[in-house]
Amino acid sequence: MKLKVKIIPIKLEHSSIIMNPDDAAELGLIVGDRLKVTYGRRYCIADVQIATGLIEKGELGVCTTVGPCEVELPEGAEVEVTPVAKPSSVDYIRKKLEGEKLSKEELYAIIRDIVVNMLNEVELSAFVMANYLRDVDLDEVEWMTRAMIDTGETLTFEKGIVVDKHSVGGVPGDKTSLLVVPIIAAGGLLIPKTASRAITSASGTADTMEVLANVSLSVDEIKEITERVGGVIAWGGATNIAPADDKIIRVEYPLAIIPKPHLLSSVMAKKGALGAKHVVIDIPVGEGSRIATSEDGRGLANDFSELGRRLGLNVSCVLTYGSQPVGRAIGPALEAREALSALESAKGPKTLIEKSIGIAGVLFEMAGKATRGADYARQILESGKALEKFREIIEAQGGNPDVKSDDIAVGDRTYTVTSNIDGAISRLDNVMIKKVARAAGAPKDKGAGIMLHKKGGQHVKVGDPLFTIYAEKEWKLDRAVELAMREPPVVVSGMILERWPSYKII
Amino acid sequence: MKLKVKIIPIKLEHSSIIMNPDDAAELGLIVGDRLKVTYGRRYCIADVQIATGLIEKGELGVCTTVGPCEVELPEGAEVEVTPVAKPSSVDYIRKKLEGEKLSKEELYAIIRDIVVNMLNEVELSAFVMANYLRDVDLDEVEWMTRAMIDTGETLTFEKGIVVDKHSVGGVPGDKTSLLVVPIIAAGGLLIPKTASRAITSASGTADTMEVLANVSLSVDEIKEITERVGGVIAWGGATNIAPADDKIIRVEYPLAIIPKPHLLSSVMAKKGALGAKHVVIDIPVGEGSRIATSEDGRGLANDFSELGRRLGLNVSCVLTYGSQPVGRAIGPALEAREALSALESAKGPKTLIEKSIGIAGVLFEMAGKATRGADYARQILESGKALEKFREIIEAQGGNPDVKSDDIAVGDRTYTVTSNIDGAISRLDNVMIKKVARAAGAPKDKGAGIMLHKKGGQHVKVGDPLFTIYAEKEWKLDRAVELAMREPPVVVSGMILERWPSYKII
Repeated sequence: MKLKVKIIPIKLEHSSIIMNPDDAAELGLIVGDRLKVTYGRRYCIADVQIATGLIEKGELGVCTTVGPCEVELPEGAEVEVTPVAKPSSVDYIRKKLEGEKLSKEELYAIIRDIVVNMLNEVELSAFVMANYLRDVDLDEVEWMTRAMIDTGETLTFEKGIVVDKHSVGGVPGDKTSLLVVPIIAAGGLLIPKTASRAITSASGTADTMEVLANVSLSVDEIKEITERVGGVIAWGGATNIAPADDKIIRVEYPLAIIPKPHLLSSVMAKKGALGAKHVVIDIPVGEGSRIATSEDGRGLANDFSELGRRLGLNVSCVLTYGSQPVGRAIGPALEAREALSALESAKGPKTLIEKSIGIAGVLFEMAGKATRGADYARQILESGKALEKFREIIEAQGGNPDVKSDDIAVGDRTYTVTSNIDGAISRLDNVMIKKVARAAGAPKDKGAGIMLHKKGGQHVKVGDPLFTIYAEKEWKLDRAVELAMREPPVVVSGMILERWPSYKII
Repeated sequence: MKLKVKIIPIKLEHSSIIMNPDDAAELGLIVGDRLKVTYGRRYCIADVQIATGLIEKGELGVCTTVGPCEVELPEGAEVEVTPVAKPSSVDYIRKKLEGEKLSKEELYAIIRDIVVNMLNEVELSAFVMANYLRDVDLDEVEWMTRAMIDTGETLTFEKGIVVDKHSVGGVPGDKTSLLVVPIIAAGGLLIPKTASRAITSASGTADTMEVLANVSLSVDEIKEITERVGGVIAWGGATNIAPADDKIIRVEYPLAIIPKPHLLSSVMAKKGALGAKHVVIDIPVGEGSRIATSEDGRGLANDFSELGRRLGLNVSCVLTYGSQPVGRAIGPALEAREALSALESAKGPKTLIEKSIGIAGVLFEMAGKATRGADYARQILESGKALEKFREIIEAQGGNPDVKSDDIAVGDRTYTVTSNIDGAISRLDNVMIKKVARAAGAPKDKGAGIMLHKKGGQHVKVGDPLFTIYAEKEWKLDRAVELAMREPPVVVSGMILERWPSYKII
């Protein structure tokens, strides 16, 4: 069937070709079928959407992004459309749904089709669900990881020992990487750290670093800066490293699930693609973090180590305390300020310093730099070398190397919540802390977030400040305060253990 | 946040509200989040899509269909938008993903949200996958079925005995309902038969009946005609009976899976909603039909019977021969012609006559109309009463009651495939028969399809016609012939069992 291209000036994340219902019926197509669109001697394959209104009979609506299209389709062009069968990756997804083990070739086909947007949302969801509900063994995870690496950009370093760290996430306020990277680089190792932006959290490492420097670096820039300065903190989304990963995460988000095979392959693909030899995986454990119990954490650690061995990476895992935020600051600017301040003074907050030194120490030991890695890391931090290195990294990434922690602007609309009883902090609710910080505007409003004045176990008296909400806009502050009032992120208990809400909004 | 409505003149099946990326980030929204749109004193809740291009900052793109919207949003209207949490039905879907049993209230919440388009494709897929991969017990199936019935239109008849039949499908050419309905109605029972259109088959019962009469009837019309004439064959999709069902099927289609809990609830909800007391479920069994083995068929039959008992329906199941088409005609007009001819002559084809009489007979016995139901049904068919009744039904549905089978127009482009060896028909491939008939234009082109000249086991000589492809358009005939040449729907074997393709395209 011949149709005339009509450009639809709209760019959706998932886009497709839109047909008039009559033309679709003529070809026996229904929504979710695939169409081959041939223009001249080139063609592309796209998902069929059917719509009335905009698209007349004889027209083919083409959105700005059409997926795996190798051909530019100009307005008014006459194209030939023919239905095509589903790609065989859909059969493999069905096979996994039936509980069968997939082969290396089958997993590569699935990952390749994910990368070129060949699979629609239902098919992608089915793949995620199959990984979540069916047994996936380490062979399959290994193949999936290799496929993710091979379908994206990779990096190799000619000299130097390349190390990396990664957190499986879930803990608010975790700005550890902003300390670990300069400590490691100052200690003579290379660390090309890529990080993500927040999806459901208040600030991803990339969001936090962006307060101080540019994080949208290409793979070439990551390599150049790492070789020159020793380290980098870049946003992984700006590169084409393991591109399947982001597309899978997008489908996982609506259901807030991450199948373990994907957690493993996601982390290891990113590390493998960057050429790291020694990797520390941080697994925060505890209520409100992603991994609830130490037992689960150890199981995951075993799998990470074995997967690393198969991929030729030396992997150590650390289970860390994840029941409350790392440090006291949550939100991009507040976290950047806290991290920089910790590098400046090498003093508090204790949770941040200890976690950073601990992780850097393990990396130093793995790379043979020190037998007592944590001591070596602490020495680098306390000597001011880590601060100096951090300034170099900021400068290399186009930021102001002379920035002081006090210079960092945070939101000027604030609201402090105080305790209305004498007691102790019985709980910091990670999930509510994230939600309140997001309601206040984080991560989009860099200055928005939360400063905790008390942490778990500390005693408080009536009227003591518990936490302060920061915002850049009044209406977002109101929204955050309202939420914090309804569901308290910081819970104080006296001898009476249940009283809710346990603090007064002043 | 206040935004100005911009109407997008496009009507997609799944539609949503489209925001500019800046506005979405300002509210901390990502694709798949939900937004409450308030206009005056009314509001609606919709899925967020994010797009550049068409939508400027400060604008809210509104597609023609916005899901559960109780408010008309005119172009240029100023609306207030606020993010809202996911509905609790998403939590229940996650709970089912975890393998837990859902309560009645939870299943009602899910089905209700499906009906009002509150769940996006990923969430709906997750529900389908959970039903496919997790154990779902009969309590849950019962509640799901009741929820499907209660969220749509229902029908009650004041007098008369209401019966119904339903096939779980999968066999091409199954026009049994066109015989069963008039036989039953002529026998003094009421049968308000709703049927579906083809999704992947060459013709649904609704498509076939549409050759003879209007099938888009409202629930009131179904009731009126059934009470007046005794029976009706209507398209279920034109009614609002069990509307959740269609929405679930749309997600199942891309993966070609139907979870058993949904197969059960889908059929029983439709029958329950129409007030049937006695129901026969036809379960075709065999290679190329939906149920592969008799053992699976019996398991399904048990579940149908038990589910019927719980819902107060008297259910009998029949396992039927499903390895080859029923009768010889596949495609709307060809099937309508074959069915009408069978009513006219009460002769062949044998498979169609015997299956129809068998099912009608079981219904007569269940309703206490006859002790030897099949004999009673045959008598009605052979006496011409069924034909007379079918004419009344056609007339009541706005068709021409005087139509003869010879009057029915079929496609005038034909191509006959003959055998190139002496041998016997070793296989009729249901899947390929459907595909070739669809390639020829069925069900959209009513006259397109296939006539089989030989069926399984029959002997053929070189040059004997095997089947004829009918089409209305030359290019579709070419496409169908090409497909049939590549993957033969009718396989002839001599003493040499493997030779492929086993016939010559002349």
